[in-house]
Amino acid sequence: MTSGKDVRIKDTKKQNNTMSKNLKIIPLGGLGEIGKNMTLLEYGRNQIIIDCGVMFPESDMYGIDLVLPDFDYVVENQETLRGIVLTHGHMDHIGGLPYLLKRVNAPIYGTALTVGMVDRMLEEAQLQNRTTLNVIDDTQTLHLGPFRISPFAVAHSIPAAVGLVIDTPVGTIVHTGDYKLDETPTGGRTTDFKRLKELTPNGVLAMMGDSTNADRPGRTPTEQLVADTLDELFAEATDSRIIIATFSSVLARLQEIMRLADKYGRKVALTGRSLQQNVELASELGYLKIPKNLIVDIETNVPNDKLVILSTGSQGEPRSALNRMAKGEHRQVEVHDGDTIIISGGTIPGNEEDVGRMLNNLFARGANVIYGPLATVHVSGHGSREDMRIMLEKVSPRFLIPVHGEMRHQHLHARLAQDNGMAGEDVFILSNGDSWITDGETAWLTGSISAEDVYVDGSLVGEIGERVMRDRERLSQDGFVVAYVPVNKKNKLVGEPRIISRGFLQMDSSSELMDAAQVELKRALKRNGRFPDDTVRETLQNFFFNKTKSRPVVLPNIVRV
Amino acid sequence: MTSGKDVRIKDTKKQNNTMSKNLKIIPLGGLGEIGKNMTLLEYGRNQIIIDCGVMFPESDMYGIDLVLPDFDYVVENQETLRGIVLTHGHMDHIGGLPYLLKRVNAPIYGTALTVGMVDRMLEEAQLQNRTTLNVIDDTQTLHLGPFRISPFAVAHSIPAAVGLVIDTPVGTIVHTGDYKLDETPTGGRTTDFKRLKELTPNGVLAMMGDSTNADRPGRTPTEQLVADTLDELFAEATDSRIIIATFSSVLARLQEIMRLADKYGRKVALTGRSLQQNVELASELGYLKIPKNLIVDIETNVPNDKLVILSTGSQGEPRSALNRMAKGEHRQVEVHDGDTIIISGGTIPGNEEDVGRMLNNLFARGANVIYGPLATVHVSGHGSREDMRIMLEKVSPRFLIPVHGEMRHQHLHARLAQDNGMAGEDVFILSNGDSWITDGETAWLTGSISAEDVYVDGSLVGEIGERVMRDRERLSQDGFVVAYVPVNKKNKLVGEPRIISRGFLQMDSSSELMDAAQVELKRALKRNGRFPDDTVRETLQNFFFNKTKSRPVVLPNIVRV
Repeated sequence: MTSGKDVRIKDTKKQNNTMSKNLKIIPLGGLGEIGKNMTLLEYGRNQIIIDCGVMFPESDMYGIDLVLPDFDYVVENQETLRGIVLTHGHMDHIGGLPYLLKRVNAPIYGTALTVGMVDRMLEEAQLQNRTTLNVIDDTQTLHLGPFRISPFAVAHSIPAAVGLVIDTPVGTIVHTGDYKLDETPTGGRTTDFKRLKELTPNGVLAMMGDSTNADRPGRTPTEQLVADTLDELFAEATDSRIIIATFSSVLARLQEIMRLADKYGRKVALTGRSLQQNVELASELGYLKIPKNLIVDIETNVPNDKLVILSTGSQGEPRSALNRMAKGEHRQVEVHDGDTIIISGGTIPGNEEDVGRMLNNLFARGANVIYGPLATVHVSGHGSREDMRIMLEKVSPRFLIPVHGEMRHQHLHARLAQDNGMAGEDVFILSNGDSWITDGETAWLTGSISAEDVYVDGSLVGEIGERVMRDRERLSQDGFVVAYVPVNKKNKLVGEPRIISRGFLQMDSSSELMDAAQVELKRALKRNGRFPDDTVRETLQNFFFNKTKSRPVVLPNIVRV
Repeated sequence: MTSGKDVRIKDTKKQNNTMSKNLKIIPLGGLGEIGKNMTLLEYGRNQIIIDCGVMFPESDMYGIDLVLPDFDYVVENQETLRGIVLTHGHMDHIGGLPYLLKRVNAPIYGTALTVGMVDRMLEEAQLQNRTTLNVIDDTQTLHLGPFRISPFAVAHSIPAAVGLVIDTPVGTIVHTGDYKLDETPTGGRTTDFKRLKELTPNGVLAMMGDSTNADRPGRTPTEQLVADTLDELFAEATDSRIIIATFSSVLARLQEIMRLADKYGRKVALTGRSLQQNVELASELGYLKIPKNLIVDIETNVPNDKLVILSTGSQGEPRSALNRMAKGEHRQVEVHDGDTIIISGGTIPGNEEDVGRMLNNLFARGANVIYGPLATVHVSGHGSREDMRIMLEKVSPRFLIPVHGEMRHQHLHARLAQDNGMAGEDVFILSNGDSWITDGETAWLTGSISAEDVYVDGSLVGEIGERVMRDRERLSQDGFVVAYVPVNKKNKLVGEPRIISRGFLQMDSSSELMDAAQVELKRALKRNGRFPDDTVRETLQNFFFNKTKSRPVVLPNIVRV
């Protein structure tokens, strides 16, 4: 396969000359990582954006709240931006919009549920006036400059998800969006291969294909399995309260749980803000049909065997409803002996420790917790290898660009395509910022534009970089020491140095060790006072390492008095 | 089941009177967590210890290198300590010994491999003279005070692992150790139910049973499956170099890999210190039979298709050999297109992100990486639910104490026992430090002795506590700010305050924000200078939060000049 590092630009002039007749695809986020999906399509002076997500930080992104795609290129070319098209309403596909809309103005297109979720998000950010929101459905075709965009239904873990067929002057592009192939999706939709075929009578030039589950063999199980398991668990839990934690956007599953509650004569109480909001929005828009009088307020007194509590927190998030129950900090719900608790959500990589700790706490409170390996209480929303093979076969693209998932998944997707007959040079592994270019006949990569991770920390966007990250990492390991050193004009110590520390030792500033450090520091400054900054740093770093084998950050504060 | 929180001590006097006729079991580590397994058995003035492990820190244990069991109770009662008996040589069962032996002196007993590994560890810590090491095997019985201890062979992911039958004056205790039931363990041993039965003619009073895989249904697959998969992968990789990363202690698998290398005409090169040490030790002791001339130095020039590189790093550990290859930092091995890399080790919870990142890097270098879900390149060393049920049936104990694994696994083990006919009150969920007491007829719990986690950070043992941990957490999130404020005797500001920060903002001390903060601080100190510490803290905390929505640690450094 072809990847960015292999590329040499052979004939820049030719490329520039033919620029207006070429299509460019530039991923700005979503390659080589989970989340912040965003792709730019460019033809002449026309751009469209597909999705604009956020990524939740990895564990070594200290203190970071969110990670955004790099919007600079979009902002620089904003007069050519024709619109933003969304595939579905998950945060890794729409969460970046409030940040993007602060910098550019463009109409947004998506299905009713997707647009509803964006609307709520923009309302919270007070950005509704920055854009127009346009509802489209999977029977329509949208014209944005030279792009003709036709959504087609896909099965995924949120309703109203679509893939996109994008007709361009050089050929047809298919973006699968996030999809699975599920023939029995319990109220959701199957992936609409019929429309996909009708939309691509002349074949497909390139497919951007979801790679998330490229390391899972076989097919992703159907959502119906979860429905069946839940039915069994409801039937068994005759005397006990049932608490179910799931993703607030898996509306088909929420629908199924409500159906089961109704069937078994139970009421449903909701806890967790995102869950309440999504249930409200989805039932307003008709994506969720709630039997009358089913939902009760969480404060309502309902016997244990007549109640289902639907909760957020399947990822063990510290402040989620279920984790507060686990720690005994939930205001309305106290978990007790005999409760049946169902964790109906797979653990997202990186959350294993949080989830494990929450489970331990729930068991310690006497609950009967059913999770992951014990029963089929969750299935993935992404197709596995065999599903991906079927998609490749159905679309049969000339070129493949694996998207979504991490680097390993894209490579495994690429190998799968090659095992199924695609030529290696027709499969392109892109990095964020790489430009994939096609004239409709051939395709090649050019050097990349800037597409760095942009960190959000509190209200700071893009102001925190690698240096701060590394400082935080060091501080998290061994804390710090600040040495105040009063000197005269000749850099001679006058008075007493003072050492303050935090996060280094239990006793911090008052210990014997600190007294010894002060003595050592005075001695060193007397011996070598010409460059007091260096002397303080070296002396204290060596002293503390010898005594503790730790390396706190040492900051000299030399003050001329 | 019965757990610590349920216990009321009804008749303390009776218990004290009969103390010398009762057996006490006190777990000091290894309950409710992975690792640092250690159990104390006490009868009158006689104690023995089973295992003494370390735990590797969880992600919220900032800067901590290791976690030890609490040795205080053992140290206080050291004159009654008859010996330390080890079940096998994994670090979570022996890694605490160097720390324990610095405080008490007691003979150590284990199989030849286990004792060999301890010997090497004590040599490195220069503690060999603190104990005597005694090799026992699974045909012997060891007498330590009133305890008669007979090891029996168990299958596990390290050779020479044993469970223990411990005869005491009040009855027989079985400690399973870490075990799986594997009828085809490729050179390892099967779990010896025959000897176990012979050793327990009068039945078993209590079993301490491994709970690690209590959430995995069915049986743990046999190691033979891994051997078969590796054979297939060797057969397929005709032209490519093979790099295999695995745990350095899975000697049966190392043996199998060497057999395959020999079969397919390949040499084996080793990289990674622990791997080289274990291979050396195991072949010295006869646990590993290495064909002549099979091993070559990693620097030797061997054609790709004639070489297997055996490496550490299946957990993506930052400094491991494989991770250095992934990052292009390994001195001898450069991963390239066409390499077959096999990750023959399950990912330990908490390591998912590190492993994922390493895999991404290896794929990006063009390697064909085979891992986890793609093929059976690893199986667990612990029995699953059906194995645990078989063990319960074979041992048929009067009482069950689930050990090892986390809290959820112990609860699931307890439920499994109850589903198979044990009475709830005969199953005891203990916390570290709980005392389980039996007179041979009944059993009960008493309040716990201190058994806190003991943190090792550099050369500091037990000196870092929760406060430092919380400080480090805050520092890792938002960094810190130190404000130097010179005042006169009346606490009036004289001269300029100075603000130093680190890990807070990219520009740290020199930015506009810092200048504004200084102005704000001067204004505040002029307005309210009576308690300058408080003024500095409040002013800067509020100022920075308003400006950035971040909360750096603020430390005032008020200096009287």
